Amino acid sequence: MTTTVAPSAKDVDVEARVDVASLTHQLLGRWGDLRLFSRAIVGDPRFQKIEGLPVAEHRERVLEQLKLLVTEAKVLRAFPERLGGADDAGGSLAGFEELVAGDPSMQIKGGVQWGLFASAILHLGTPEQHDRLLPGAMTLAVPGAFAMTEIGHGSDVASVATTATYDEETQEFVIHTPFKAAWKEYLGNAGKHGVAAVVFAQLITKGVNHGVHAFYTPIREQNPDGSAGAFLPGIGGEDDGVKGGLNGIDNGRLHFTNVRVPRENLLARYGAVAADGTYSSPIESSGRRFFTMLGSLVQGRVSLDGAAVNAQKIGLAIAVRYGNERRQFPGANGEETVLLDYGRHQRRLVPLIARTYAAHFAHDRLLDLFHAVFSGETDTPESREDLETMAAALKASSTWTALSTLQECREACGGAGFIAENRLTGLRSDLDVYVTFEGDNTVLLQLVGKRLLSDYANEFKNIDAGGMARLVVERAADTVLYGTPVARALQTITDQGQRRRAVGHLRGEDAQRALLADRVETMVEHVAGRLRPASKLPAAEAAALFNQNQHELIEMAKAHAELVQWEAFTKALLDVKDEGTRRVLTWVRDLYGLTVIENNLAWYLMNGRLTGQRARTVSSYIDRLVLRLRPHAQDLVDAFGYGPEHLRAPIATGAEKERQDEARAYYRALRAAGDEPVKEKHLQKKR
Amino acid sequence: MTTTVAPSAKDVDVEARVDVASLTHQLLGRWGDLRLFSRAIVGDPRFQKIEGLPVAEHRERVLEQLKLLVTEAKVLRAFPERLGGADDAGGSLAGFEELVAGDPSMQIKGGVQWGLFASAILHLGTPEQHDRLLPGAMTLAVPGAFAMTEIGHGSDVASVATTATYDEETQEFVIHTPFKAAWKEYLGNAGKHGVAAVVFAQLITKGVNHGVHAFYTPIREQNPDGSAGAFLPGIGGEDDGVKGGLNGIDNGRLHFTNVRVPRENLLARYGAVAADGTYSSPIESSGRRFFTMLGSLVQGRVSLDGAAVNAQKIGLAIAVRYGNERRQFPGANGEETVLLDYGRHQRRLVPLIARTYAAHFAHDRLLDLFHAVFSGETDTPESREDLETMAAALKASSTWTALSTLQECREACGGAGFIAENRLTGLRSDLDVYVTFEGDNTVLLQLVGKRLLSDYANEFKNIDAGGMARLVVERAADTVLYGTPVARALQTITDQGQRRRAVGHLRGEDAQRALLADRVETMVEHVAGRLRPASKLPAAEAAALFNQNQHELIEMAKAHAELVQWEAFTKALLDVKDEGTRRVLTWVRDLYGLTVIENNLAWYLMNGRLTGQRARTVSSYIDRLVLRLRPHAQDLVDAFGYGPEHLRAPIATGAEKERQDEARAYYRALRAAGDEPVKEKHLQKKR
Repeated sequence: MTTTVAPSAKDVDVEARVDVASLTHQLLGRWGDLRLFSRAIVGDPRFQKIEGLPVAEHRERVLEQLKLLVTEAKVLRAFPERLGGADDAGGSLAGFEELVAGDPSMQIKGGVQWGLFASAILHLGTPEQHDRLLPGAMTLAVPGAFAMTEIGHGSDVASVATTATYDEETQEFVIHTPFKAAWKEYLGNAGKHGVAAVVFAQLITKGVNHGVHAFYTPIREQNPDGSAGAFLPGIGGEDDGVKGGLNGIDNGRLHFTNVRVPRENLLARYGAVAADGTYSSPIESSGRRFFTMLGSLVQGRVSLDGAAVNAQKIGLAIAVRYGNERRQFPGANGEETVLLDYGRHQRRLVPLIARTYAAHFAHDRLLDLFHAVFSGETDTPESREDLETMAAALKASSTWTALSTLQECREACGGAGFIAENRLTGLRSDLDVYVTFEGDNTVLLQLVGKRLLSDYANEFKNIDAGGMARLVVERAADTVLYGTPVARALQTITDQGQRRRAVGHLRGEDAQRALLADRVETMVEHVAGRLRPASKLPAAEAAALFNQNQHELIEMAKAHAELVQWEAFTKALLDVKDEGTRRVLTWVRDLYGLTVIENNLAWYLMNGRLTGQRARTVSSYIDRLVLRLRPHAQDLVDAFGYGPEHLRAPIATGAEKERQDEARAYYRALRAAGDEPVKEKHLQKKR
Repeated sequence: MTTTVAPSAKDVDVEARVDVASLTHQLLGRWGDLRLFSRAIVGDPRFQKIEGLPVAEHRERVLEQLKLLVTEAKVLRAFPERLGGADDAGGSLAGFEELVAGDPSMQIKGGVQWGLFASAILHLGTPEQHDRLLPGAMTLAVPGAFAMTEIGHGSDVASVATTATYDEETQEFVIHTPFKAAWKEYLGNAGKHGVAAVVFAQLITKGVNHGVHAFYTPIREQNPDGSAGAFLPGIGGEDDGVKGGLNGIDNGRLHFTNVRVPRENLLARYGAVAADGTYSSPIESSGRRFFTMLGSLVQGRVSLDGAAVNAQKIGLAIAVRYGNERRQFPGANGEETVLLDYGRHQRRLVPLIARTYAAHFAHDRLLDLFHAVFSGETDTPESREDLETMAAALKASSTWTALSTLQECREACGGAGFIAENRLTGLRSDLDVYVTFEGDNTVLLQLVGKRLLSDYANEFKNIDAGGMARLVVERAADTVLYGTPVARALQTITDQGQRRRAVGHLRGEDAQRALLADRVETMVEHVAGRLRPASKLPAAEAAALFNQNQHELIEMAKAHAELVQWEAFTKALLDVKDEGTRRVLTWVRDLYGLTVIENNLAWYLMNGRLTGQRARTVSSYIDRLVLRLRPHAQDLVDAFGYGPEHLRAPIATGAEKERQDEARAYYRALRAAGDEPVKEKHLQKKR
């Protein structure tokens, strides 16, 4: 192993260095102004988490923060202009994602109020309902819960057991909880502050169950000062109490005993009931209607992807700064060595920087796609489906990565990382639930996997077998490059035959793409092949067959997410204006691609895609990239653009360096004065 | 892939089933009575954590628990009989490890008081000092801190900067903190409750620095009721405040401004200063003396290994019970499917059960070795060194595994896993710091790696090249089988030539051993080969060479730890009396071995130890083992022996099943009465 690498021809005349300001500008992206505005907000101590605050106080503080956000921030941009919003779906989410730097509880409680409760009214309601119900939800005059999940049904929303039965005589819906497992559960704002809820229940009229619909339902009395009072008649509930994180949010349970709401409170965009009890819907298929309604709430997943990436950035900015200042164990020259000069420390942190950049750029593309769909620019069933698939894949990927990154950062900071004021443990605890809420990651990846299989099956019908497997990689690239996969890219990648050959130049972009895409394609072919008999089997056997392949299906979906991230990173390199920066970022992209390949090296070897000889070069090239990037690590995390008011970790303020400098100065002075005691071992003869 | 496996000849006549009671008895092991006694203690609500308690209250509660432990538990067994102990090193730790089920803060604060503060007096002090200082430390009359770590020096204890300078005139040591980085940091009991500390400082007498020694130092006034008052003159400090977990412990910082302690307070077993300032020690080499002193405190690592394994057991017992009762999504027969019947869910949890069993049995062997050394049975420099190596390897391995296992358990329980009352998040947060305290895992593994290299080098001198590489595997087996590696085992394993051949029968014990051992040996040879030039290089280049290999060195140490765990598991199979249980446990052992191999499959392929064809069978055999073990999952976690008073998670009490049964009964009744609404999709014609 050597520490120097012969630069390639096109590298030699450009000095590798990061122009931090311009990279920060690029990372801020399309809605940079809104991001900066949000960052300024959370730079204000009023919007910042106080670690260790008792739960009750934390909850009240976060409620107050939400009230301040209404007037001081731009949290209402997603709503209609006529109601004080800006009809700006993408910009609204961009700004919202930045709130995580203040306090994830504030972000998520805001998400409950505006992203779920008010958004359900916006997306599932009619214009009349917008006028009537949105203002209170937007201004926080009506704090609300999003009552979808039940104790008995988390991931399987279609099976919720709460019923809303239409009573023709009174023109009311009767909302009812039939048994304990049907209690609504884990609802933010339900524990204490909520006075209304959007309740998801099986709509029953004229003896027919039309499936899950949403009902605007007052749940608590409201005191003159606007605070929540007692439960309304027929409504009960419990507080979820302490949680593993996000303790600034009052999660709770709700149940309903024949609670009556007026007919007009059925959010009726996708399904309405006439006075006489007749049901009607613009979407004929009850299955498609259900998925359309759920799909309109995709923004939660989009914003969690963005917030998770932001939390990683904060963690890495803290750990890299500390790793660049903290010294431990004397080196060869007698001076103590900075942590980030240790090979292992570099291997722990630098690849995580690369992964974070990849996740960032992929999120940017996801947000573009989200905006295109929700602004109406390209709102088609296909683009909605693509958006949902991409959101599911990236949300699962980045929320898991956030946890592992924050944990690695905390460990890399040793005991100091465990002290709450250094923020790493708190961020990790708060983000923990991101991996199972708004769609459990495992369930989301299964959806992604099924989508990849059905695309494959569709393509199979239409094209010859040779071109079949190109689909998946094209979809990944298309989603990234063109916003929607409807626009098929020209065949920019090497063809199937070439792709399958053992790769010669791992550093090359084409080689990385080929390896990453090939893995996804091959897994899709493989799983599809194994599942093919299912259509001819009895249901139980078909289910067993699927179950046997569930693990690989999910691994395949993960591989797809990583391919999407890599494609997004690669596309973003085109936008880097500064050549020195592009050179560094290209290494970062290579490091990401090769790390993914290294993590799946056994697959490449078993499937004959890499020879043993070639596979060994993956790790050694990663070693070299890490070493090459080490001098740029600080710049790369500085470019995330967070100031001390966002990091707020004493270990990332220069205090560590100050202490070490003081210590070294002390010893120098002692030596200079001749006051240093002789070390015993220097007195003893060598043994 | 098939779900049935042809049983091997010796399997056919034994029904695979777990005799839970006898397996529990085996797991309780050598000090089972003491473990059961401890479990009874922590089954009492007075000794249990209350989630969400404010920090100040939690700290007082834990202090009170410690006082109760003195009178009600058997926490003093490690101390001398003449002072009320039982001279029982191993039994004491066994009982202590079980306290984690009550509250990890209680366990670790107990560890600070008895395992560090009092143990430092025991192991570093003279009999006179035992008589004078131990009783107060044992009875908690004197709550004490263990003041070793400094802000500037965590892992590098030899470089602590606090000085203890002998003053011949007054026959006192002057303890002094020269600068901010030398503040003692992260000390349990220092934030609030401690009235004394064992302070580690550079001992300077007659102008010579004799290295780090320990000094018994009062730090706070003690109120008449025994509680801690103000700092004594010259002493200052700060509270560490909120931490990422273990908030029942009052960690804090201390600093000393020319604080005088009498000469008699130098804990003088390994180094004494006469009245005239003459230094003497029974250990001539200052380096060896330092490591002997530190090594006497190895029990902390031993007990963390045990406690981490116990925490995993609790997590898995909760998650498996829930996975066996929780239903989600209708299956082929219309009934909802139990989570643990999903392929992915099995793949998530069952291998963790296997890993936990392996870690358990390895810990048992570690505890045996610890007892052998500390009871004096086989207290030799070699056995101490072996103990330290094994403790370092297993502590690092099991504390990391505890975190990943608890996290997987929490995610496998979805939102319910995030609610604090279900304990998974709290256990994880409390155990988080286990991976960096009492020896940072990365630093510990580096020590293990260096030990493996030096053993290899020693062996290299004495034996022919052919036999050279057998050393490492023999050491692993010896440590496990014979308590110390001094007794060399007969060559029970296949020879080098055979081992290097691609393996035919992965299920076989010999094949697993060969693969696991071969990897460690080969990595040792490889790293040793790459480091060989270092001895001839200038210091800076030698350090750079080492640094380039640090990552692999640490991976090698991890592989060694896994081999030790596998060997311990395999040895334990011999002690399983019930044949059905042994059959199941043999699968569990196979699953552990194959999972380790699967995790490193790329290595085996690149190094020609497995063909691509054979490598593919690893994963498919794992799939089959997981499926085979699925029906035994509940028995395997029940055998850990924890009752509801230890699990204390509402989701692991049967409540989930009750709710589901109620829901299913409701729907059955509805159908029977003909009251079920028709589903819309059943009305519509198929589209």
